[in-house]
Amino acid sequence: MSEPTIRAEKLDAADELAGLRDRFVLDEGVYLDGNSLGALPANVPDRITDVVRRQWGGLRIRSWTESGWWTAPERVGDRIAPLVGAAPGQIVVGDSTSVNVFKALVAAVRMAREVSGGGDRDEILVDATTFPTDGYIAGSAARTTGCTLRPVTPAEVPGALTPRTAAVLLNHVDYRTGRLYDLPSLTAAVHAAGAYAVWDLCHSAGALPVGLDDHGVRLAVGCTYKYLNGGPGSPAFLYVRHDVQERFDSPLPGWNSHAEPFGMRPEYEPAAGVLRGRVGTPDILSLLALEAALDVWDGVAIEAVRAKSLALTDFFLECVAAYVPAGRVESLTPAAHEERGSQVALRCPDAGDVMKRLIARGVVGDFRHPDVLRFGFTPLYVGFADVERAARVLAEVLAG
Amino acid sequence: MSEPTIRAEKLDAADELAGLRDRFVLDEGVYLDGNSLGALPANVPDRITDVVRRQWGGLRIRSWTESGWWTAPERVGDRIAPLVGAAPGQIVVGDSTSVNVFKALVAAVRMAREVSGGGDRDEILVDATTFPTDGYIAGSAARTTGCTLRPVTPAEVPGALTPRTAAVLLNHVDYRTGRLYDLPSLTAAVHAAGAYAVWDLCHSAGALPVGLDDHGVRLAVGCTYKYLNGGPGSPAFLYVRHDVQERFDSPLPGWNSHAEPFGMRPEYEPAAGVLRGRVGTPDILSLLALEAALDVWDGVAIEAVRAKSLALTDFFLECVAAYVPAGRVESLTPAAHEERGSQVALRCPDAGDVMKRLIARGVVGDFRHPDVLRFGFTPLYVGFADVERAARVLAEVLAG
Repeated sequence: MSEPTIRAEKLDAADELAGLRDRFVLDEGVYLDGNSLGALPANVPDRITDVVRRQWGGLRIRSWTESGWWTAPERVGDRIAPLVGAAPGQIVVGDSTSVNVFKALVAAVRMAREVSGGGDRDEILVDATTFPTDGYIAGSAARTTGCTLRPVTPAEVPGALTPRTAAVLLNHVDYRTGRLYDLPSLTAAVHAAGAYAVWDLCHSAGALPVGLDDHGVRLAVGCTYKYLNGGPGSPAFLYVRHDVQERFDSPLPGWNSHAEPFGMRPEYEPAAGVLRGRVGTPDILSLLALEAALDVWDGVAIEAVRAKSLALTDFFLECVAAYVPAGRVESLTPAAHEERGSQVALRCPDAGDVMKRLIARGVVGDFRHPDVLRFGFTPLYVGFADVERAARVLAEVLAG
Repeated sequence: MSEPTIRAEKLDAADELAGLRDRFVLDEGVYLDGNSLGALPANVPDRITDVVRRQWGGLRIRSWTESGWWTAPERVGDRIAPLVGAAPGQIVVGDSTSVNVFKALVAAVRMAREVSGGGDRDEILVDATTFPTDGYIAGSAARTTGCTLRPVTPAEVPGALTPRTAAVLLNHVDYRTGRLYDLPSLTAAVHAAGAYAVWDLCHSAGALPVGLDDHGVRLAVGCTYKYLNGGPGSPAFLYVRHDVQERFDSPLPGWNSHAEPFGMRPEYEPAAGVLRGRVGTPDILSLLALEAALDVWDGVAIEAVRAKSLALTDFFLECVAAYVPAGRVESLTPAAHEERGSQVALRCPDAGDVMKRLIARGVVGDFRHPDVLRFGFTPLYVGFADVERAARVLAEVLAG
């Protein structure tokens, strides 16, 4: 056996999380795309069948109370909370990430203006390297609040903050390169300038400790279909810190966010707490699939997940270095642990074609235009032998 | 047998839609709450199992293309289209009704201003009798576009239109009373004034012919979990008429609405056609449950549904008149067919208690604060014997 193969065997044997793979439905391939769509947790199909047949089919309308449908957005939010370092009562689940970015960013601008006592804060900073939807939505948030939008790299944020800055939209992990940003220090800098930071946790929730409460984050959003395995297009989450909830002024004040939703009152009065982040009728099938999917985290510490994630990405880079001729691919992912999320991005000119051939050989990552191979490492169900195999097949594909 | 019982038997025997009941999962009760949550179509559970186990669990990320996930919002929209009188390519499905009201209303204001060449249109009219969420969201749409919001009854709309009116949000059927409004003439009046009408079809889509294309409607939204039986919180739909799509300027320009969503371009460029009404990643489980649910409409003409709906509500009012002492309840639902949706609302002071006792006896309607009993009649699975029984049990409950 080659050296990396022996190493993989030893690492797998010592992996305390190895048994968690049985909580998922997987096949003989290597799935390194859990950063795009998490694998199916094994308990989800039966739960969904129960939701459809018994709760919807049998109880019908009664399920809004008897099956706990009505309170699912905040209940599922409380299940996500410990994974991102939040105490209960600060997260609601519902709507897409884009819609939640809009809610959070408009609310951020309104809060920043309220504190500074007027409309003189008129600029939104947005991570110029962000997943595009965040930038598009930030543009709309700026337009609807009378702000200008200024794209900056995360590194430029501290220097770009001025008394005019209302809000800053940041990604915790860059979707393309896998770079992890320094959430504590950036949050502190934004807040020190009197502005509000909104964090997009799509590529960190479920992948590494976020520490929302500890780091004083006020507003964050994230998706649930990547490292949280909620299923295709499962609803996103919104975090609103306890001490700003009373001032959270949503641009989408649907009836589900009302203090008395069934009062059918013509005047809007927001609910207390994070419930005011809700909008319309929650999407129950997807929400309860997500709730079931969160069972895979029972007894799992996010710190252990992070340790394994770093070991997996370290080992992948090591295997790639051992198998792939120098210069054939270039890693866009930082080598330093404190700057790395849970994915590795490799650049090569023929990335689109390479990824097609990898997938045909059972190694599933994804391609990002124009030249990036993305490999996501989900410690709950990816092992070290998978990593060695992926690197080996990649080398063969690149050689061929 | 009593006179109404004999009538019910005859009506059921002559009912050409009676066989459709077998397309649903029902029990021995009488379900008159399909205007709140439609019953489970019998083919949905197996479809969802396939989506979860094979498409998500087996194909995983490949399903975005291979299982048609990516194009589901517009494909399912085209399935809804004939039920509301729309040619293909004008409806997308996704997000909640509230979110779609926001999109449509903000876009309406922007379009009205573009046509009149400036910002002098600064008023939104909203149906004062509407389901509250529409009013709350209209308030937010007004705030984010610099408009004032003016609540008026639908009857007052023609007289309230001025050169300052930008948009008018109207309900096709009142959620509380079941009153049907005159969509063709109100649409014409609003458009003649240079403003844009947005129709909320929550209580008419799947219940009666809407005729969107025929009546020149430009913008409409509707929910899919009532008469379209899509399941709890299934995604809503947005209709944007062909000839205004190019000017539809969404306040929620998520990456799914981009001309080139996987181009990951920093500049936003809206997709052609109704796709620009999309926002974020579509909620696949709920969307595909809805797609399966729409199979129950195969071979069913909405005109036949409407004819039966009127017969059902006529017969219910007739049975109530026969069984319930005069004055004990008062109908809020218009007697004239052209003013009646597919529900009957009865007012009585003890409505909350009465509904509880009805439900305990297997007749499921719902209660709307403070004194309204709502009974929805879904012609696909409600028969005339159900109607007679509901009125009879109601009379018994009211008698004490």
